[in-house]
Amino acid sequence: MNPADCPLCRTDGGLLIHRDALLRVVRVSDTPEHPAFYRVILNRHVAEFSALPADERRRLMDVVVAVESLLLSELRPAKVNLASLGNVVPHLHWHVVARFADDAQFPAPIWAPALRSRDTAALCERLPALDAALRLALQQLP
Amino acid sequence: MNPADCPLCRTDGGLLIHRDALLRVVRVSDTPEHPAFYRVILNRHVAEFSALPADERRRLMDVVVAVESLLLSELRPAKVNLASLGNVVPHLHWHVVARFADDAQFPAPIWAPALRSRDTAALCERLPALDAALRLALQQLP
Repeated sequence: MNPADCPLCRTDGGLLIHRDALLRVVRVSDTPEHPAFYRVILNRHVAEFSALPADERRRLMDVVVAVESLLLSELRPAKVNLASLGNVVPHLHWHVVARFADDAQFPAPIWAPALRSRDTAALCERLPALDAALRLALQQLP
Repeated sequence: MNPADCPLCRTDGGLLIHRDALLRVVRVSDTPEHPAFYRVILNRHVAEFSALPADERRRLMDVVVAVESLLLSELRPAKVNLASLGNVVPHLHWHVVARFADDAQFPAPIWAPALRSRDTAALCERLPALDAALRLALQQLP
């Protein structure tokens, strides 16, 4: 994929929570059945995690862990799921998703067919406060 | 989940390629449409990546990267997919999967419905040599 055609080169890719020289964190809204869904996106266009130098890999995973930790402490989900796939958009990004026992696919991955529907309104109401807490946590990371 | 009931506490979880004090690497055969599929499994029963100390997280990701690097150099896949989900078996394990443009779900995640079938025989023939190269690479990791 030519970076000129890459949606993660041309746009933030979601609601911007944090940005630094290496990466940004966004909350995504393209998967409405999973509202507590953030992505940690490398700023530059690189496809594979192993193509990064070790210090950049560590920094990315430290940020992924910070997002996961906050999801766990604030939302008490059944599980947090982490994934770096990039088959459609080969621009390195980590999915960090809070999963709940009553969500659309649980315990299957979010990419599996839906097993049920649920009302996400109460969870959605908590997201602005979660965004603010996450922004603060990421600013305080070393 | 009680560790006594956990399949990743009771078994290796696949064909054992490498084991050290912290983790093991296995090739899995539970997803036959994706034969070049390895898992990096923490030996002890911990659910969430963020529950590990930083040095253990780094070691795990260094091993994930070593597996990814070998898949890329040996198989030239379209993409490598990384994921730590654990909704069914909440015992920390990283999926490392070589994806090909003609595989069952590409470019969708491997957990999405199959789009096509393919003959994996030629890929399967390469796996014993890949296992051997991976074993060597992991023994040589710092």
